[in-house]
Amino acid sequence: MDSAQVAIIGAGNGGQSFAAHLALLGFSVRLWDVEKEKVDALKKTRRIRVSGAVTGEGVIDLVTGDIGEAVRDVGLIMVVIPTVYQGSVARAMAPYLKDGQVIVLHPGATGGALEVRTTIREAGSRAAVTLAETDTLLYACRSPRAGEAIIHGIKDRVNVATLPAAEAPRVAALLNAAFPQYTPVSNVLVTSLNNGNAMMHPAPTLLNAGRIESQSPFEYYSEGVTPSIARVVEAIDSERLAVAKSLDVTVPSIGEWYTACYGVTGKELYEQVQQVKAYEGIKGPTTLNTRYLFEDIPTGLVPLSLLGRAMGVATPAMEAVVTLGNALLGRDFWREGRSLEKLGLAGKSSAEIHAVVVN
Amino acid sequence: MDSAQVAIIGAGNGGQSFAAHLALLGFSVRLWDVEKEKVDALKKTRRIRVSGAVTGEGVIDLVTGDIGEAVRDVGLIMVVIPTVYQGSVARAMAPYLKDGQVIVLHPGATGGALEVRTTIREAGSRAAVTLAETDTLLYACRSPRAGEAIIHGIKDRVNVATLPAAEAPRVAALLNAAFPQYTPVSNVLVTSLNNGNAMMHPAPTLLNAGRIESQSPFEYYSEGVTPSIARVVEAIDSERLAVAKSLDVTVPSIGEWYTACYGVTGKELYEQVQQVKAYEGIKGPTTLNTRYLFEDIPTGLVPLSLLGRAMGVATPAMEAVVTLGNALLGRDFWREGRSLEKLGLAGKSSAEIHAVVVN
Repeated sequence: MDSAQVAIIGAGNGGQSFAAHLALLGFSVRLWDVEKEKVDALKKTRRIRVSGAVTGEGVIDLVTGDIGEAVRDVGLIMVVIPTVYQGSVARAMAPYLKDGQVIVLHPGATGGALEVRTTIREAGSRAAVTLAETDTLLYACRSPRAGEAIIHGIKDRVNVATLPAAEAPRVAALLNAAFPQYTPVSNVLVTSLNNGNAMMHPAPTLLNAGRIESQSPFEYYSEGVTPSIARVVEAIDSERLAVAKSLDVTVPSIGEWYTACYGVTGKELYEQVQQVKAYEGIKGPTTLNTRYLFEDIPTGLVPLSLLGRAMGVATPAMEAVVTLGNALLGRDFWREGRSLEKLGLAGKSSAEIHAVVVN
Repeated sequence: MDSAQVAIIGAGNGGQSFAAHLALLGFSVRLWDVEKEKVDALKKTRRIRVSGAVTGEGVIDLVTGDIGEAVRDVGLIMVVIPTVYQGSVARAMAPYLKDGQVIVLHPGATGGALEVRTTIREAGSRAAVTLAETDTLLYACRSPRAGEAIIHGIKDRVNVATLPAAEAPRVAALLNAAFPQYTPVSNVLVTSLNNGNAMMHPAPTLLNAGRIESQSPFEYYSEGVTPSIARVVEAIDSERLAVAKSLDVTVPSIGEWYTACYGVTGKELYEQVQQVKAYEGIKGPTTLNTRYLFEDIPTGLVPLSLLGRAMGVATPAMEAVVTLGNALLGRDFWREGRSLEKLGLAGKSSAEIHAVVVN
């Protein structure tokens, strides 16, 4: 096993950015994607040109659509796919995992590492891997086409937590060889409860459903997060903070997070969001079939709300968004999403949940 | 008491249309409004010019801001105000009410007649009045300014129910002297559960909150009720039908209602709504402080949902809209709205509720 070898799982915006950046930093990079066309396109040159905060052309050692080939014997597996697919990808890689490998979910949303651990075990793997999840993607980035990535910005700090919890400093150190921004935190409850996407995406998208589906373009943050919609986000955020408190976990409020990440101040979330320069030009979704709903509801609001229910904390605003999201999309995110069973937390008390995330 | 004398309570779109139309039909009309400026403007000429489906200039006998002066000794009191003010107006008129007077709410939304009865009794009135509610306003109309009304259309049929229930044929006959469209139905549960506004207004408004608050104009029905939003309305409507069924009340689905009212057909609500000619040109609200929320939530979704809860019928989509409406507007419609206490129905079984609405 080679700790200088990194497998990047997912060649989307984040995956290609990581791949190019790591290659430019001298790491040996393997890149996997589920999409055959993308794999074929990337295989041709094995080069990804990156611009913005990082500039250059990274050469990828191996581009593959075979997940076994991607992950076999590498020290570090970076999973950079929509969180909603983390379970199925974990199931696919399970047969190839070996003791000592580190799998990092970028990010885990709520319950990523727990879901992956449960899934790998259910798939029959007994490999002693370390699972890690971050609370946000390192980059603000996009990949307009295969072989090209634009990194608009790099965050100052990203939290990383692990299963077992005590491995966080070691995993952070591993990541710090490339990226000094990763900072270990005590356990995955911290990263899982620090889910800003679940705050900023589903409710504003839902409350802009009409203009999205009738193809009326808008700026997602400056026009989509109106004063009243920001108030709804704050209501949902206070439910998240109450769930965290019930689990004795301290996480920043969404307002504190904006101040920490972007240095924007203001009494209300609305004012803060309006000041975020990085949001300029970010358009609202053009279809309701958007990750802002089909990802951030099942891997964000659903497990947050279910954790609340288990702890006796009411989350009516979260539930309302899930319920209306279900009706809008004709889906059942309560069933599709991360249940406490899928996270290995069903029927457990706060103390028992803490025991699960320590081990 | 003069049965040819009619008091119109409220000089809005509907009130001025009724006043002009009734005056042109030869009735003696008194017109009351809470707004001093409007009363002063109307007092100057006591004339309302009406155009559209009805043409002419109606002369109003009395325009007043004194509700006692308006209702004293008239046979018929037509209440044509936002349903959310029906309670406070009932309290104001209670001291002046006399045996035999008929009060008709145009429309009652959900629980209008019940709330007015409870309110009048609590205000200390023992007058034997007959209370009536319709399930929709007779007209599609607007009043661009005091003294002018435009009646775009007149519905073919409007249901009317009464407290006590047996009075419905008599009240319908009274109304039929002017308007043949009013048809008696068995009791106020029928009219109260037949609340189309509560289906078509709060959810689509909520799901268009972003474009409303960011002042992006749109056609309310053709652009605002997108296919997915129509699906949400259908989910809410099936909850309403389940509540009705639990109370042994038969009401049409929203789709059946569209077919009956507008002759539009189609498998899905979305298709039907797109065909309604009368909806052409109806713009979405330009503020979230709109009757579509502050009226149709507390006098529609709240009592419908609470009736459901009392009958053991889950109404998660209705509750979701109320919850997010509360968060959007910073209000508490569960508290402000029509509770079962306000309707005199708290703690009652289906059979007991039927006994209440018969008497």
